[in-house]
Amino acid sequence: MTKTSVSVLGLGEMGSTLAAALVEAGHPTTVWNRSPGKADALVDMGAIAPATARDAVSASDVVVACLFDAASVHGVLDPIADLLSGRTLVNVTTTTPEQAREIAGWAADHGVVYLDGGIMAVPSMIGQPGSSVLYSGSATAFEQFRPLLDLWGDSTYFGEDPGLASLYDFALLSGMYVMFAGFLHGAAMVAGAGVSATEFAGRAAPWLSAMTGGFAGYAAVVDGGDYTVAGQQSLEFSDLGDMVEASAAQGISTEVIGMVQNLIRRQIDAGHGKEGLARIYESIKQPG
Amino acid sequence: MTKTSVSVLGLGEMGSTLAAALVEAGHPTTVWNRSPGKADALVDMGAIAPATARDAVSASDVVVACLFDAASVHGVLDPIADLLSGRTLVNVTTTTPEQAREIAGWAADHGVVYLDGGIMAVPSMIGQPGSSVLYSGSATAFEQFRPLLDLWGDSTYFGEDPGLASLYDFALLSGMYVMFAGFLHGAAMVAGAGVSATEFAGRAAPWLSAMTGGFAGYAAVVDGGDYTVAGQQSLEFSDLGDMVEASAAQGISTEVIGMVQNLIRRQIDAGHGKEGLARIYESIKQPG
Ligand SMILES: NC(=O)c1ccc[n+]([C@@H]2O[C@H](COP(=O)([O-])OP(=O)(O)OC[C@H]3O[C@@H](n4cnc5c(N)ncnc54)[C@H](OP(=O)(O)O)[C@@H]3O)[C@@H](O)[C@H]2O)c1
Ligand SMILES: NC(=O)c1ccc[n+]([C@@H]2O[C@H](COP(=O)([O-])OP(=O)(O)OC[C@H]3O[C@@H](n4cnc5c(N)ncnc54)[C@H](OP(=O)(O)O)[C@@H]3O)[C@@H](O)[C@H]2O)c1
Repeated sequence: MTKTSVSVLGLGEMGSTLAAALVEAGHPTTVWNRSPGKADALVDMGAIAPATARDAVSASDVVVACLFDAASVHGVLDPIADLLSGRTLVNVTTTTPEQAREIAGWAADHGVVYLDGGIMAVPSMIGQPGSSVLYSGSATAFEQFRPLLDLWGDSTYFGEDPGLASLYDFALLSGMYVMFAGFLHGAAMVAGAGVSATEFAGRAAPWLSAMTGGFAGYAAVVDGGDYTVAGQQSLEFSDLGDMVEASAAQGISTEVIGMVQNLIRRQIDAGHGKEGLARIYESIKQPG
Repeated sequence: MTKTSVSVLGLGEMGSTLAAALVEAGHPTTVWNRSPGKADALVDMGAIAPATARDAVSASDVVVACLFDAASVHGVLDPIADLLSGRTLVNVTTTTPEQAREIAGWAADHGVVYLDGGIMAVPSMIGQPGSSVLYSGSATAFEQFRPLLDLWGDSTYFGEDPGLASLYDFALLSGMYVMFAGFLHGAAMVAGAGVSATEFAGRAAPWLSAMTGGFAGYAAVVDGGDYTVAGQQSLEFSDLGDMVEASAAQGISTEVIGMVQNLIRRQIDAGHGKEGLARIYESIKQPG
C-alpha cells in the first residue's frame, strides 16, 4: 500500500513537528515555509522542499496548513486557489469558529474539500499519548485521511459545521488559561509567606488535577437545569469574600478571584443563595 | 497504649465526619453541637454527647473546633476560655489568615496551645486517599497529635505562623474556584453548538488535569525571575483577543476569559510582549 502524499505549509514550531511525524511514518512529504531555512532539518529527514507554496501544493492530494492565523492562511492560499481545487485542505491553524466557517466557505467556492483542525497539544506532545486533535468539516476527508491524522494524536470528529472544532478548541483552551491564572494567583498569595512558586506548584498540580473530578457533578446539575438539587455546595457557602479580602491583605490583585466572586454574587443577589455553586453557569450565560 | 481523648465542637457536614473517624479509630470522643440532634448518630457509634460545650471541653486534652467561621469560634469558645487553658485547640474552621492569627493570639492569652488546620477535602474524602489537611501554629501539638490528625488525611505542617495553613488553603481553593469558573465558561461556549455540559466535562477534566503538568514550568520561570528565558510561549502568542471575541459571538459573558486577557494585555502594553506567559504573575503581584 502506498502512503498518502502530503504537503505541509508553515514550518513554525508546530508545523515542522507535524511534518516530521509524517516523514517518519513514511508519507511522501513536501514542505514549504515563507522564510527560508526552516525546511532544512526536514529535508535531511527525507522531505522535499520546493521554493514556492504553489509547487508544494501541486505535489500532494492533501495539503496541511499550519500558519499563524486566518489572515496568513488567506495570504498564502488565495493566490493558489486554482491549484488547490480538487484537493483536500486540512487547516490546523488556530482561528475563531467564525474564521473557520469563512475559510470553509472560501474553500467550497474553489472546489476544495475542507477539514478544520484544532490541536490540543504543544509540539513536544505530538504523536505522544495525551495529544489530541479536534476536527470538523468534511466527514469524508476525516474518514479518508484518518490514519494520517492519527499520527499526530487522538483524532476526534465533531461534525460538518467547520466551526465546531475551533469552538471546542477555544472552550478547552479558555479553561486552561483561566486555570493557569488561578494557579498563578495562588502562587502570588503564598509568595508573601516565603513559599516559592515551585513548592506551591508541587501541591497545586495534584490538587487541581483531583478537583477536575468535580466537573461531572457540576455538569450533571447544569444539564439537569435544576440548581436546587440536594447535596450541592450552596452559593452562600461559596461566597469568596474572605478570599478576596485575604488576597488584598497580601497586597496582590483581587481581579482573578474577584472574577469568580462576581459570578457568585450576581446569583446570590438575584435570590439564589441557597442553590448550588453550579449556578454560576447562569451568570456566564447571561452577561450582566 | 491508651488513645488520646478528643472533643469535637461543631457537628455539621465536616465536623460530624471528623468525629466519626475518631470514634472509629477507637479514640474516646466527646461531641457537641449548638442545635440538638446532630450528635445522635455519633452517640450510636460510641461517642459521648454532653449538653454544653463546657462539659464537652472538660472531657479531653484535645479540642477540635469545626464551626462555621471565625465569629462562631469566638462565640462558642470565649465563654469557656478559662476551661480551655492548658489544653490543645485544633481549629479546622475555615478562616482568613488574619483571623487564624487573631484566634491564635487569643489562645495564647488564655494559655491554650493552638494548632490551625485547613481541610483540603470534602466530607466524603475524609480518611480516604487524596484527603489532605494543612496545619500551622504549635509544632509541638502537631507532632504530639499527628497519629490522630493522620486519621483525616495526609497531614502537612507549614510553620509556627498560625496564618500559614489558612493562607495555603485559600491559595489552593482560589485555584479551584477559578478553575471551576473556567470549566463552566468552556461549557457555556460549546452549549451554543448543542454540546452538553456532561459531554464537555468528559473532555475538559482529562485536558485540564494534563495541563496542570505545565505549572512546574511556569513556576520555575517565576522563581527564576527571568521572563525572557527561551522556549516559553510568549505573551503576544497568548493574546486571547480571539477567544474573547468567540465568547462574545456565542452571546455569553466575556468576564471569565477577559480576566486572563486583562492580565496578559497589561504586560504586553508595558512592553513585555516577547516575554513568557508566566509574566502574568507580575500583573497579579502589582494590582493595576
Ligand atoms: N505551538 C503550539 O504549542 C501550538 C499548539 C496548538 C496550536 N498551534 C497553532 O498552530 C499554528 C502554528 O503555530 P506555531 O507554534 O508553529 O507558530 P510559529 O512557530 O510562530 O510559526 C508560525 C508559522 O506561520 C508562518 N507565518 C506567519 N505569518 C505568515 C504569513 N503572513 N504568511 C506566510 N506564513 C506566515 C511562519 O512563517 P515564518 O517562518 O516565515 O515567520 C511560521 O511558519 C498557530 O495557529 C497556532 O495557534 C500551536
Ligand atoms: N464541608 C466541606 O466540604 C468543607 C471542606 C473544607 C472545610 N470546611 C470547613 O469546615 C467548617 C464546617 O463546615 P461544615 O461543612 O461542617 O458546615 P455546616 O454543615 O454548615 O456546619 C456548620 C457548623 O457550625 C455550627 N455553627 C454555625 N454557626 C454557629 C454559631 N454561631 N455558634 C455555634 N455553632 C455554630 C453549626 O451548628 P448548627 O448545627 O447549630 O447550625 C454546624 O455545626 C467550615 O469552616 C468549612 O469552611 C468544610
